[in-house]
Amino acid sequence: EQFAAFRQILRTTIISIPVSIVIGSLVAFFLWLLSLAIHFRFDHKWLLFLLPLAGLIIHFIYRTVGKSSEKGNNLIIEQIALEGGEIPPLMGPVILVTTVITHLFGGSAGREGTAVQIGGSIAALFGRWFKLKGSDLKIVLIAGIAAGFGAVFGTPVTGAIFAMEVLAIGKIQYNALIPGLIAALVGDLTVSAWHITHVQYHIDAIPAAPYFLSDYLPIDFLLLAKVFISSTAFGLASLLFSEMAHKIKALGLKLFKHQWMLPILGGLIIIGLTLLLGKPDYLSLGVDAEYPGAVTIPSAFHTGGAQAWSWFWKTLYTTITLATGFKGGEVTPLFYIGATLGNTLATVLNAPVSLFAALGFIAVFAGATKTPLACTFMGVELFGGEHVLLFTVACFTAYFFSGNSGIYTAHRTAIPKK
Amino acid sequence: EQFAAFRQILRTTIISIPVSIVIGSLVAFFLWLLSLAIHFRFDHKWLLFLLPLAGLIIHFIYRTVGKSSEKGNNLIIEQIALEGGEIPPLMGPVILVTTVITHLFGGSAGREGTAVQIGGSIAALFGRWFKLKGSDLKIVLIAGIAAGFGAVFGTPVTGAIFAMEVLAIGKIQYNALIPGLIAALVGDLTVSAWHITHVQYHIDAIPAAPYFLSDYLPIDFLLLAKVFISSTAFGLASLLFSEMAHKIKALGLKLFKHQWMLPILGGLIIIGLTLLLGKPDYLSLGVDAEYPGAVTIPSAFHTGGAQAWSWFWKTLYTTITLATGFKGGEVTPLFYIGATLGNTLATVLNAPVSLFAALGFIAVFAGATKTPLACTFMGVELFGGEHVLLFTVACFTAYFFSGNSGIYTAHRTAIPKK
Repeated sequence: EQFAAFRQILRTTIISIPVSIVIGSLVAFFLWLLSLAIHFRFDHKWLLFLLPLAGLIIHFIYRTVGKSSEKGNNLIIEQIALEGGEIPPLMGPVILVTTVITHLFGGSAGREGTAVQIGGSIAALFGRWFKLKGSDLKIVLIAGIAAGFGAVFGTPVTGAIFAMEVLAIGKIQYNALIPGLIAALVGDLTVSAWHITHVQYHIDAIPAAPYFLSDYLPIDFLLLAKVFISSTAFGLASLLFSEMAHKIKALGLKLFKHQWMLPILGGLIIIGLTLLLGKPDYLSLGVDAEYPGAVTIPSAFHTGGAQAWSWFWKTLYTTITLATGFKGGEVTPLFYIGATLGNTLATVLNAPVSLFAALGFIAVFAGATKTPLACTFMGVELFGGEHVLLFTVACFTAYFFSGNSGIYTAHRTAIPKK
Repeated sequence: EQFAAFRQILRTTIISIPVSIVIGSLVAFFLWLLSLAIHFRFDHKWLLFLLPLAGLIIHFIYRTVGKSSEKGNNLIIEQIALEGGEIPPLMGPVILVTTVITHLFGGSAGREGTAVQIGGSIAALFGRWFKLKGSDLKIVLIAGIAAGFGAVFGTPVTGAIFAMEVLAIGKIQYNALIPGLIAALVGDLTVSAWHITHVQYHIDAIPAAPYFLSDYLPIDFLLLAKVFISSTAFGLASLLFSEMAHKIKALGLKLFKHQWMLPILGGLIIIGLTLLLGKPDYLSLGVDAEYPGAVTIPSAFHTGGAQAWSWFWKTLYTTITLATGFKGGEVTPLFYIGATLGNTLATVLNAPVSLFAALGFIAVFAGATKTPLACTFMGVELFGGEHVLLFTVACFTAYFFSGNSGIYTAHRTAIPKK
């Protein structure tokens, strides 16, 4: 029995390595193309006005070649739960192209959905070639997600844990962890080998603030209390995001008989909001700055790098963009929402800005995707291990206050009933 | 429903705070007493010759006042699984006293069993006072384990994750994580408030070793391969430990009609081994050095700080000590076995000594207790986040090669069948 388990891990790991090299290469190509598209729009600002048209094109791409892959991440989560491989091979190219279109014209979206779907569809393709079934197929699909996620953010451990945790809260598939970890590592290394780099974040040193208990307790209780309060807010922000995403989508489906009108309206609202606010900060990915002084994820790590309501605007932009049919993912916008909200809360609570931006970055993501363990690891991989206690507090508190439904609706159904 | 869950977490967290202060204080007292006992033996080496007598005393303490608590950690794991509180209040004092006796006379044992049993019995006591039932009781018991573990090693996040993970592989009780984390933090802070400190470990910087792929890949594949090979060995070492612990115990029960003869024989074997080896390095905890140049856990982090078979002798000493009825725990000896084996393997494989000592430290523990996630976090909490990828690789690989049964036999039964 032990040997059968050993052979399975060995077999799935060996299969996962070429799978992950392919996934990593596609993710590298995607990241390169995405960066081109984002910077092309920076130089051609009029592209935003074509956003409704871009939405229409995306709509028809999914109506024709992409039909069966419209359920995106949820389809992959479902297929893994069913130990099935019914993931269309076209899912990868279709999500890649439509995500780049979304960003080229200024839609506010992320990229993890794209990476996960590239990972899932490539893994399913290999699964068919190798005639994998049952738990073998399941493990290779999980490895595919891990490779995609690990590659797109440069965080292999997080990729492996995320792939496990996103399937069902509270159940960790330990037998998939070794293949998943190796897949995520290979995916990440493949991206590096193509010389694609990730943004580096940094938490500034926190000056010691001695108080009356300092001689007894090696912790700043006031800081811990601030982290708790903020994490509650991070959880509620992720609840707001999930609710808005679901509600706007439901409303759109109810109001419009002709579904193709939805992306047009979505595009028009994004244009209107941008004209109203008079600045393009909340468009697209939010990592690179369109102009000096723009609010971005990196800027949120510095005092004055976000405005009081930046987090809300990004929530509005992103939920409208995605609910009206544009493509990409939610995670990078969630990082943006969390980091800017952390920035705002740090100012309000007189707390260290870069630390709170980092906590928001991981905690809003934890709440919205229901993956608090993966997000704690992401904190360690991106920001170092010094604040692992605060990362854990933030992710689990935010997870707890994030409500019952996350952004992945398929996730919920996999939770075992109590 | 969401509010009921919220109220439960709030309720159990509030109850867990005084529980954890009591647990933390008892753990602090235990650590202080343990240190006294260990150093007293350093100064009175003849105490070792009374080890058989000490074993006899421990045997009769358990035969009289400690009867129902002899199952130790397994009893607590069982009671949590059953949502029951049938943990005798005397368990805490009895394990504390018998652990200190074990160490005073040189028995090779740890301390996490003591901390977990103090935590579990105090939590059960409060549970009765507050008339807790069902999942409330379960969460407070988990919090008690978390507080005990977090307090004894100074690692709150690890304490919380360990308490969750030790109950059943692959199932994380997310609703217990917030109370558990707060309990572990309060337990740890209470120990600090009593001015009890923990040994600090440090991984030396690893010199960059450029090779032909360095321009493409930001990782040293050779190092990674060495980590894999070593982690397989760490897993097998934990398998050997678990098997020897179970087999020696079974053999003892079979050979001796009079159970009180077992600790006498165990004590005599330990004395014999020590006379044979001519040095006391493998007695007791293995953290403080009895003489300059002794092999200890801290010494294993330096080149030449362990001998080739140190890990094996410690395995033999500890399994004999614990299987013949002495008390304490397995974790610190597992750290010792891992760190010294890591030291030996680093020498054989020409790898960085302090890194491999650290990997062994967490990985042998992960394999023997079947808690790879908690051990990965322990790596981050004790050694920093820089090597989190290698920690994950080491803990999961070792876990995988550690066989089906760990040191906690109750753990196994809780694993859901596939």
